[in-house]
Amino acid sequence: MRVFNERGYEGTSMEVLAQRLGITKSAIYYHVSGKDELLRLSVDRALDALFAVVEEEASTTGRAIDRLEHVVRRSIEVLVAELPFVTLLLRVRGNTRVERQALARRREFDLVVSDLVEQAEAEGSIRPDVDPALTTRLLFGMVNSIIEWYRPSRGLRAEQVADAVTKIAFDGLRTGSRKPA
Amino acid sequence: MRVFNERGYEGTSMEVLAQRLGITKSAIYYHVSGKDELLRLSVDRALDALFAVVEEEASTTGRAIDRLEHVVRRSIEVLVAELPFVTLLLRVRGNTRVERQALARRREFDLVVSDLVEQAEAEGSIRPDVDPALTTRLLFGMVNSIIEWYRPSRGLRAEQVADAVTKIAFDGLRTGSRKPA
Repeated sequence: MRVFNERGYEGTSMEVLAQRLGITKSAIYYHVSGKDELLRLSVDRALDALFAVVEEEASTTGRAIDRLEHVVRRSIEVLVAELPFVTLLLRVRGNTRVERQALARRREFDLVVSDLVEQAEAEGSIRPDVDPALTTRLLFGMVNSIIEWYRPSRGLRAEQVADAVTKIAFDGLRTGSRKPA
Repeated sequence: MRVFNERGYEGTSMEVLAQRLGITKSAIYYHVSGKDELLRLSVDRALDALFAVVEEEASTTGRAIDRLEHVVRRSIEVLVAELPFVTLLLRVRGNTRVERQALARRREFDLVVSDLVEQAEAEGSIRPDVDPALTTRLLFGMVNSIIEWYRPSRGLRAEQVADAVTKIAFDGLRTGSRKPA
């Protein structure tokens, strides 16, 4: 994953991967069919973790606003725990079948979140004057931007980042003063 | 810019640029010294537009919270108006001197914003329990994520996107109910 993220997936050959791992190419081919399968395993690891989040009890029971906040917080934890895998996932552009499948699963995840935003609007816990799809994009735009600067070595915990995101975005999303009822 | 964004700057040769422009390489070299200068002209176009924003009257006079909101709104307008140039700027990774200069100017811009967040906290118009540097990163993470999905052809105006961002982030950033005084 590190090599893919440094050089880009397209720019990385099996030769380079073998060198970096200190093994032969045939040793890699013993385990996987090729670069494509390595990419699939990696982006699936990130996607499986994100889909596990939306199946957690706190994501499926209770008020939609609380479920949405739970999904956002836990997505940030996944992003930090699986940083190189999520980074690779977010850089996928759809050039191969594996990449297109990953993009399709990302869209599916976005739909789950967008549906939560709609439900939260319906229950009256989110301001009604924001578009659910646009809100989902901007909210996860903020969440996903964490890959650009987060470095575990700097001692900032996932929880602190999640606190900051929910303070900024949710006190804005929740109905309250300054916001239409 | 389109070719750089499609193939990546590293992956684009002058040969490819000449083909795409339908002119010879020497015709390009008549105007610029090379790929590096093209990159510099492009990222400077984006950076100059962003720095012009922070020098506008509404960015320099009045309450810090209003100046911050103005900078966010106008940055979104610049991003939409100069989409391929800002996209290229945001993908720069610091591999060459031109790229490092661009990153240095981005950091300078971030500092201006981060300073506005601090001033807004000091004047009491932003909740005091968010870190200015982290807030700047997340706020511009949301703003910059727009390059990932915004397509002018879909009819969504910059103003509508700016409205959504300020509704989500600013009603959260402004002191009010649910937030500590």
